[in-house]
Amino acid sequence: MHMAFRHIDAIALMRPALPKADQIRPYIDRIDENRWYTNHGPLLKDLETKVGERFGLPRDNIVTVCNGTLALAIALRCKAAQPGYCLLPSWTFVGCAHAVNLSGLKPFLCDVSPETGTLTIKEAIAALKECPGPVRAVMPVNLFGQPISIEEWEYFEHETGVKVVFDCAAGFDTFHPSSPPGMISLHATKLFSAGEGALLITTDIDLADQMRRATNFGFSSNRVSEHWGINAKMSEYSAAVALADLEFLQHKRQQFNERAERYRLGLSNFEGAYLQKGFGEDWIGTFLNVWLKKPNACQLIDKFQAESIETRMWWGQGLHRHPEFKKLERTDLSVTNDLAKSFLGLPFWVDLPLTDIDRVVSTLINITIEA
Amino acid sequence: MHMAFRHIDAIALMRPALPKADQIRPYIDRIDENRWYTNHGPLLKDLETKVGERFGLPRDNIVTVCNGTLALAIALRCKAAQPGYCLLPSWTFVGCAHAVNLSGLKPFLCDVSPETGTLTIKEAIAALKECPGPVRAVMPVNLFGQPISIEEWEYFEHETGVKVVFDCAAGFDTFHPSSPPGMISLHATKLFSAGEGALLITTDIDLADQMRRATNFGFSSNRVSEHWGINAKMSEYSAAVALADLEFLQHKRQQFNERAERYRLGLSNFEGAYLQKGFGEDWIGTFLNVWLKKPNACQLIDKFQAESIETRMWWGQGLHRHPEFKKLERTDLSVTNDLAKSFLGLPFWVDLPLTDIDRVVSTLINITIEA
Repeated sequence: MHMAFRHIDAIALMRPALPKADQIRPYIDRIDENRWYTNHGPLLKDLETKVGERFGLPRDNIVTVCNGTLALAIALRCKAAQPGYCLLPSWTFVGCAHAVNLSGLKPFLCDVSPETGTLTIKEAIAALKECPGPVRAVMPVNLFGQPISIEEWEYFEHETGVKVVFDCAAGFDTFHPSSPPGMISLHATKLFSAGEGALLITTDIDLADQMRRATNFGFSSNRVSEHWGINAKMSEYSAAVALADLEFLQHKRQQFNERAERYRLGLSNFEGAYLQKGFGEDWIGTFLNVWLKKPNACQLIDKFQAESIETRMWWGQGLHRHPEFKKLERTDLSVTNDLAKSFLGLPFWVDLPLTDIDRVVSTLINITIEA
Repeated sequence: MHMAFRHIDAIALMRPALPKADQIRPYIDRIDENRWYTNHGPLLKDLETKVGERFGLPRDNIVTVCNGTLALAIALRCKAAQPGYCLLPSWTFVGCAHAVNLSGLKPFLCDVSPETGTLTIKEAIAALKECPGPVRAVMPVNLFGQPISIEEWEYFEHETGVKVVFDCAAGFDTFHPSSPPGMISLHATKLFSAGEGALLITTDIDLADQMRRATNFGFSSNRVSEHWGINAKMSEYSAAVALADLEFLQHKRQQFNERAERYRLGLSNFEGAYLQKGFGEDWIGTFLNVWLKKPNACQLIDKFQAESIETRMWWGQGLHRHPEFKKLERTDLSVTNDLAKSFLGLPFWVDLPLTDIDRVVSTLINITIEA
């Protein structure tokens, strides 16, 4: 008997699904009626109002920005406009370090906690002593949406005077407003999206005002530049996409939760890898990562690929491994070096077939045991 | 007989008209089919190809950016990444100076030529001697789309080593590609628009490649940051708007030309104000400015307002009058100070009623004679 040709469908890592033309249509019609296409138009204001309602804040506290990198740069610049350093974890997306550079501060790379996988005040306090110059700001990064301790950072800011800006890029579902501003990305890969875009949220109304002006040339009124600024405005079209997407958020959450549950069940008796704490139970995001017992993510990627399954170390192996950032000043990064190789992003999208998840899980178990 | 109540309809300065929902629809459908929403997707590539065809260049030479300010900052940073100064005219939009700051260079404000109203190499050569530090770059700005001499700037760059970046924000209709990159804005107020967006165009293929990477975190391949970068990408939705707008460009040009002609006829026997050279004849844009014989634009704005006609000094009175820029180093700016008050933007939009133009013209003539 011949061995049958074994055809395997490839499983993609991520397939974003934004609202369809019919769902966006009513909002585009509103743009047509208004003949107002950007510069803080009615749809953008509507979006800010609706986001504010979700977080129990008035519209004034919500600032839309054209993307997350610029949002972080604006928040840093508005909070800490002096020469000096900004602490940030090396284990994050490169946009964070680009944002620090853009803000005028110098990045100082920190290690992360082996327990949380994030920069905590413990590492930040240690870094304050190691940093070769004055530290003006710190950028804690939440781990693909996992909640972080806002209170400890508020305490840190209060005690040290170092300004805090939260990168909660993937954290729309877990975000809690605080005086230190937080950035939520609306990039296509995120739970709630405008295609490109971001939100800056703070309970500090003066800071919100300053950040909003900074997105529009530092204009106060009458097109006069009174402060530092750039153009970082979202157009009405981007707002239309986000407004339509907001209508389907609850439905999307359910679909993602169902798929997270499938992963959870599949991995429940396996000790080689586990999901992020609370993922698919207490909170949801669009990045499903497993935390591996052995730091062998690089090898697993290849083995998955041989099975036509796309996986990714979403944050690579830390900022300090990128040529652009390899000369940045830093603390010892041993935890990062280990952790980065223990964290692997698996296929996860809103309509990923459940049977594909079963195949990913069984492949993970097989190749981990082999390895 | 009673005096009848005199009701005057207000005439707005500008009413952009971007493509309507039906016109954008086929492109949104393509986005839905692709499930690709940003990160240099198929629509963005299509847009770059079509823009390239217009300028006789392959797609590789056309770089889309999320707005003009970031585009200028990227071009400066890619051409001149050393500490030093960038020369620019004080008479321009504030975005130029914000872009220079963002690029890491220091702005040095120059005066403009009384003949052209723009920074020419004559003023730039004089500024080279006055500038207190090394000059790395210069940003010539075209006057609301009026063509500028590319050759003289190429010569200047060749002779001095000072890198040239052209701000042709309103110059889609008059743009000619050169090795020094030029920025064309796709903001809603422009002839060809994406809502928010911009193009960087250069005949230098290596520079184009470097600028494109800079819009996406300096990524080379495999999501590795090899160079300086930010996020300055246009989403597929913005590309959809621009692609739809491109279909109506010829029609829009005709409508604008017709309205420019009406202004030209109305002002033909009036010596107090004239249109920009060639406007509505050799080239067209969306900003109709009159160059006044007397520098009394400020007074005329008030008098127009009393007649319910909105006018604007689009660039105010120069960058040095903005609080954010008042401390910038500069040359003597006497021409700018005079010129700014002699240049006034009048109502101009694609479907502005011709009879409204007649009212604007007769008002201009009356209030100029009174003044």
